[in-house]
Amino acid sequence: MRLYWSPVELASRLVKKGIKYNFASGSPDPTLLPINEIRKSFENVFENYGISVIAYPGAGGLKELRIEVSRYVRRMLNIDASWRDIIITAGAQHAIKLLSQLLMRRGTIVYVEDPTFVETIAPMRFQGAKLIGVPIDEYGMNTQELERLVKDNGPGIVYTVPNCHNPTGVSLSYDRRKHLLEISERYDLRIIEDDPYTALYPNTESPLRSINDDVIYVGTLSKVLGPGLRIGFVIVSGRLRDDLEKIEQHDFATSTLTQYLVYDLLRRGVANKVVERARDLYPRKLRELIESLNEYLPGSLMFKPSCGFYAFINTRVNAWDLLRRSVNQGVAFVPGGRFFVNSRRENTARLSIGAISIDSIRDGIKILGDIVKSS
Amino acid sequence: MRLYWSPVELASRLVKKGIKYNFASGSPDPTLLPINEIRKSFENVFENYGISVIAYPGAGGLKELRIEVSRYVRRMLNIDASWRDIIITAGAQHAIKLLSQLLMRRGTIVYVEDPTFVETIAPMRFQGAKLIGVPIDEYGMNTQELERLVKDNGPGIVYTVPNCHNPTGVSLSYDRRKHLLEISERYDLRIIEDDPYTALYPNTESPLRSINDDVIYVGTLSKVLGPGLRIGFVIVSGRLRDDLEKIEQHDFATSTLTQYLVYDLLRRGVANKVVERARDLYPRKLRELIESLNEYLPGSLMFKPSCGFYAFINTRVNAWDLLRRSVNQGVAFVPGGRFFVNSRRENTARLSIGAISIDSIRDGIKILGDIVKSS
Repeated sequence: MRLYWSPVELASRLVKKGIKYNFASGSPDPTLLPINEIRKSFENVFENYGISVIAYPGAGGLKELRIEVSRYVRRMLNIDASWRDIIITAGAQHAIKLLSQLLMRRGTIVYVEDPTFVETIAPMRFQGAKLIGVPIDEYGMNTQELERLVKDNGPGIVYTVPNCHNPTGVSLSYDRRKHLLEISERYDLRIIEDDPYTALYPNTESPLRSINDDVIYVGTLSKVLGPGLRIGFVIVSGRLRDDLEKIEQHDFATSTLTQYLVYDLLRRGVANKVVERARDLYPRKLRELIESLNEYLPGSLMFKPSCGFYAFINTRVNAWDLLRRSVNQGVAFVPGGRFFVNSRRENTARLSIGAISIDSIRDGIKILGDIVKSS
Repeated sequence: MRLYWSPVELASRLVKKGIKYNFASGSPDPTLLPINEIRKSFENVFENYGISVIAYPGAGGLKELRIEVSRYVRRMLNIDASWRDIIITAGAQHAIKLLSQLLMRRGTIVYVEDPTFVETIAPMRFQGAKLIGVPIDEYGMNTQELERLVKDNGPGIVYTVPNCHNPTGVSLSYDRRKHLLEISERYDLRIIEDDPYTALYPNTESPLRSINDDVIYVGTLSKVLGPGLRIGFVIVSGRLRDDLEKIEQHDFATSTLTQYLVYDLLRRGVANKVVERARDLYPRKLRELIESLNEYLPGSLMFKPSCGFYAFINTRVNAWDLLRRSVNQGVAFVPGGRFFVNSRRENTARLSIGAISIDSIRDGIKILGDIVKSS
């Protein structure tokens, strides 16, 4: 058992406070975060619930919040789920960890997009899971390739970010969605769908969970209301739901206070308003990033992003070397090598439009382009 | 791998909202919780830190909070530790779970007091640890017996609540403390010291960690500032500290917002004031419980509690049956069977003075006494 620092963490250590062009952070745009509404909700919940808001959290999460989340996912994501099947967690990463503990042990086979999100696979690896990378292209995970791998390696779990993939930005095509759900049934695969970004863009495909109840859905309010609240959720039913409620009691990590806050924010429609503004802002930011890359780093984009926060590029040189140089000029990103499952490609990088202001994107990419050219 | 509901959770489900005599809950006294100061801290941290308070949490926890915790443990618990060796967690239960993941695997031997706290041993069992119960009496864990067991079973981990033990209320005597630290060195035992209650009582012994740096110390602010904030901490150094920081990133569960809140509460001396009031109130509550038991359930006390929240009693009849009947008359407690490691004793119960008001203790025990007598 070995433990590693995530490259996201390492990169953010290299990033000096107040770095100008921060393409490293997966945080949401600070101008969208409803800071004053959070203050208002704080007053509301203390006024209405008093001491309860700092009492021990109950199993499965605050019922009022679970009901509001069920409304939110119905409205935003077209997912129909009973509040009983919604388990509140301390963020999506916490959800993935708990699911890993329940579903994975030494040798469990987990099929993932290659590259995939380095932080969510860490707890799977810690459990001893055997990760098998499935190629990904502009239509998402190559499900024909997945089927072939499953025939060779046997059944297992599919961990996927079908919409607005992290780190590539692609979304799974309609045909592959159908195919993925077909083969999951045929070969007895359990799908874990990780879905932080779908609600933030207009015209995205509905999540897999909206068409198949067997899909284990992991969602979050981090990108809408603020990652520091640590409120995510799993939509899951039956025995696994019960086990998830029980294993959550092994850490009791989800703050009652932030559950009440998010409940009140959802109840008052604050999340809906943020999403409305997000659906205007993030597509413009992503477009700005793509256009800037095409201008200043032509040919670097390895995938054409459709939505989400990320673009994945070929840096031509070792990305850690590049990062050290670019940080000196105020530009940060996350080197991409550790996002790969099969064979690492160290000359790749993940660029995020999450935290950086839209007006800084072009200048930051221009600087990065100059550094790459002079390498 | 099997998952169970904690009897604390099951008992609290039986407890109707607003039950009059709640001896089940391990929550702190609601009259001590600094609700208005928390509101004030909320305004402070939003005013002073803005958007940072809802940003992603950093590895190891908020530096400002770690520094304040190092001051708190020096003042309250006589523990001298660098802020670098203080790792913030989402409560003490979260800390125990992470330590279990790092230190325990199938077959790892863990020596625990028998009975011990049922909720903290759950993640150890989930890891596959082999728990070995060590007898406990009014002087705490019988360390002679521990030494004998270690000779038979080999080295391992000692999980202990040396002060104000949960569920028995006893504290480890001076001689046994010395002996425990001696044999931990002689037989290469790692000690995990779980210590939620020491600060709440005057004249308690300082924690083991205050005299030996090798002890892994788990602390919490839950009993002082409110369990719903989910802020606990581990004091640990070296390689294990680094691993703890890394494995915390597998769940990212600790809310940035509540870290800032607790930081501000500590900084403003609010915790000190609560502790002052706690040191007056809890000893009076515990005395009231013991006197009431002596009067209405004479001979039931299995251990003489010295501090903390709990008394452990012999109920003479099956405690779950008793609970069902007593709940109808407004009295709740936690059946004790599952607190045992070696052989369960189902006619036992844990009574807590945490949440119940001091004025209700006597009446509640009188009612319980009547029910037991009529059983």
